[in-house]
Amino acid sequence: MARTASLSGFPEWLPEERLVELHVLDTLRRVFELHGFSSIETRAVETVAQLLRKGEIDKEVYGLSRLQEDEGEESKAAKGEHHSLALHFDLTVPFARYVVENAGYLAFPFRRYQIQKVWRGERPQEGRAREFTQADIDIVGDGELPFRYDVEIALVIAEALSTLPIPDFRLRINNRKLAEGFYRGIGLTDTAGVLRSIDKLEKIGPAKVAELLKTELGASEEQAQAALSLAGIRTEDTSFVEQVRALGVKDDLLEEGLNELEQVIAAAVQRAPGKVVADLSIARGLDYYTGTVVETVLVGHEQLGSICSGGRYDALASKGNRKFPGVGLSIGVTRLVTRILSQDLAQATRTVPTAVLVALNNDASWDAAQDVAAQLRSRGISTEVAAKAEKFGKQIKFADRRGIPFVWFTDDDGKHQVKDIRSGEQSDADPATWAPAEDDLYVRVLKA
Amino acid sequence: MARTASLSGFPEWLPEERLVELHVLDTLRRVFELHGFSSIETRAVETVAQLLRKGEIDKEVYGLSRLQEDEGEESKAAKGEHHSLALHFDLTVPFARYVVENAGYLAFPFRRYQIQKVWRGERPQEGRAREFTQADIDIVGDGELPFRYDVEIALVIAEALSTLPIPDFRLRINNRKLAEGFYRGIGLTDTAGVLRSIDKLEKIGPAKVAELLKTELGASEEQAQAALSLAGIRTEDTSFVEQVRALGVKDDLLEEGLNELEQVIAAAVQRAPGKVVADLSIARGLDYYTGTVVETVLVGHEQLGSICSGGRYDALASKGNRKFPGVGLSIGVTRLVTRILSQDLAQATRTVPTAVLVALNNDASWDAAQDVAAQLRSRGISTEVAAKAEKFGKQIKFADRRGIPFVWFTDDDGKHQVKDIRSGEQSDADPATWAPAEDDLYVRVLKA
Repeated sequence: MARTASLSGFPEWLPEERLVELHVLDTLRRVFELHGFSSIETRAVETVAQLLRKGEIDKEVYGLSRLQEDEGEESKAAKGEHHSLALHFDLTVPFARYVVENAGYLAFPFRRYQIQKVWRGERPQEGRAREFTQADIDIVGDGELPFRYDVEIALVIAEALSTLPIPDFRLRINNRKLAEGFYRGIGLTDTAGVLRSIDKLEKIGPAKVAELLKTELGASEEQAQAALSLAGIRTEDTSFVEQVRALGVKDDLLEEGLNELEQVIAAAVQRAPGKVVADLSIARGLDYYTGTVVETVLVGHEQLGSICSGGRYDALASKGNRKFPGVGLSIGVTRLVTRILSQDLAQATRTVPTAVLVALNNDASWDAAQDVAAQLRSRGISTEVAAKAEKFGKQIKFADRRGIPFVWFTDDDGKHQVKDIRSGEQSDADPATWAPAEDDLYVRVLKA
Repeated sequence: MARTASLSGFPEWLPEERLVELHVLDTLRRVFELHGFSSIETRAVETVAQLLRKGEIDKEVYGLSRLQEDEGEESKAAKGEHHSLALHFDLTVPFARYVVENAGYLAFPFRRYQIQKVWRGERPQEGRAREFTQADIDIVGDGELPFRYDVEIALVIAEALSTLPIPDFRLRINNRKLAEGFYRGIGLTDTAGVLRSIDKLEKIGPAKVAELLKTELGASEEQAQAALSLAGIRTEDTSFVEQVRALGVKDDLLEEGLNELEQVIAAAVQRAPGKVVADLSIARGLDYYTGTVVETVLVGHEQLGSICSGGRYDALASKGNRKFPGVGLSIGVTRLVTRILSQDLAQATRTVPTAVLVALNNDASWDAAQDVAAQLRSRGISTEVAAKAEKFGKQIKFADRRGIPFVWFTDDDGKHQVKDIRSGEQSDADPATWAPAEDDLYVRVLKA
């Protein structure tokens, strides 16, 4: 089980826990690369101006300043101007900047994955850390980006999540065009305002949302109920289309959204059966999404919040008249790993990478032991050499304490034997050919 | 070639450059794990008190504060007390804290590697960034740590560096005991002071170092010359021992140091021939090293500075009376990668992970194309599907522009063909069995 972090909100893992995290990261990377996504990293810092462009979550940003500032900087600090740099709070804003800066060097549609830490100065709580790792994939186009990528990216994420040692999950997918077109169709023109209210549905319930719609947006009881009816639709197949049509609202944007969401759900029913639902209550707070929107819950762990969110933004970034539309999803790796560890959902098969400890027969045998180790390593077998020629019992105990499954012995005549210290079985072995069973070659991470 | 970073001192890589960095990181990880080192990560932030414990480089530390602080925090800021957290400037201080905090959960000697970004607010210059990646290995004991680990860690690093696409290198190794014992033996008791002066040898030359020793440490001309004679010794084998003895100085600590350095060099001559020199001018500025000290230069790139440094510290950390001695080395990954990229020392075989683009015969064939792609991916072949059924020429051009070597075609009768767009060769293929040549399966990074 995970230790308590010594600094609240900044989790750290023990080596055997880190193996679980590494497994998650390696698995995601493998799936992303299999689908042709390129790795990039952006610097941890952005200018404050860049970060606050959307003007939304400045409360959560960590500003940077050098501990020993010179005179000029100190006077700036006194005026509150000392935060020219700050830590990024997500990977989307930095990616948008990167795309604009490097547009001349990228081949569009550009597919990238980005796995990095981000920082938010929020109050830490279950599933919400101040430092955490996100794994993002995005596809970004130059000028245009075919809708098909919305379908594809949902399928890639469903595949990626399916390969992780986590409980069953559901991608809850909606479409902003569908929602906004519907609101417009029933006469509610402040569609962003309606979305913000609907976004509170899970927190405050339908009655209070209706109240908000009426008091803050001037909706009639009928309009409020229609908006809530739409948000109540949730289907595991494309039958949501009929349910929306049954509400009798006509609007071009609504039609476009229905068609888009239908494509995503139809493909998912076929290629990721049971993993995706059309959930017309999904709004996503930030208002730059323009089409597909996604949130993801772990079944049985809904209170953990979304473990993977994102969607389509028609203007992820722009450079003069040039627009870069994108579609992307972001996995909350730390949130997932914290849950895996705290509930023992998966475990590493051993605590160290080492498969073999080469024991020392006597102090002079260190060099010969290194030769054995080099031979094993040349065939991919992780090997350590004992540092001291202690009694064999002590060296075996050392291996046991470190979680190393095999101990290698070479006697004075150069005869080699290897002992599986779990079974006690010991047999002759040749350092040029011996290998552990495939299951013991590398650390594996197994679902509980 | 690397683009200019948009923020000085914070390098970012293009996707094809990132492939080179990833190759370096993957290679280091593989070697470290083959030698039984466990991965850990520590949080990016430490308390300021923790970071400044050694009291040396506070000028370079980035402090953190939330952009929107509440009242209490603001008044603290006005009093200059707002930096309770700061970004780590190396991985040694955080690792020492981690060891102390988790001592009860670790099996000693604990071997760990740690590959993370660190930050220093220094003036950026060639080889010196404000944000950069370090790859550290350390072995830390509980109470004691056999000297043999000093030998081992030098060999592991020599092996790791040998597998990277970099120019030839030399580990320059010295031993603090040797140097301090020698200084003591000639009557210079402020051994730390002498070390600090000797550390400036490459920068200011022997005449000025002699001057420093005389004016600041009260050394006689004879003492200064003896210290410089020692620092002038540099051998590729263990002959430095005789050369030191020829200087006629007697001291127990000197003997101990000679013996230790001899062991390291003797093992390296045998196991990493040509990669290691005994260089008695190496001092290392920071004063917590207590035995072996190492710096590493790239041959022909000496002005780049050390690309891998470290050594033995008898008290890496302590917890009451409990001491944790360690030995470790740190590779400057960003410094290496910057040099590789700026001088085209290595290159990726292609710019994207994708091996195959599945072309669309017509718009309705997207689904069938996804089936082909899934079959290829299930056998580890990175595959993308075209988003639009453009003319084949256009789809081939798209693959070419992205650097994808193969394009897959399926005609209306379900006949499959694959084209190597580099050679133009096209042949029948079965999605269940076809694979590219091994060299084309994954991106590889090749030394120029």
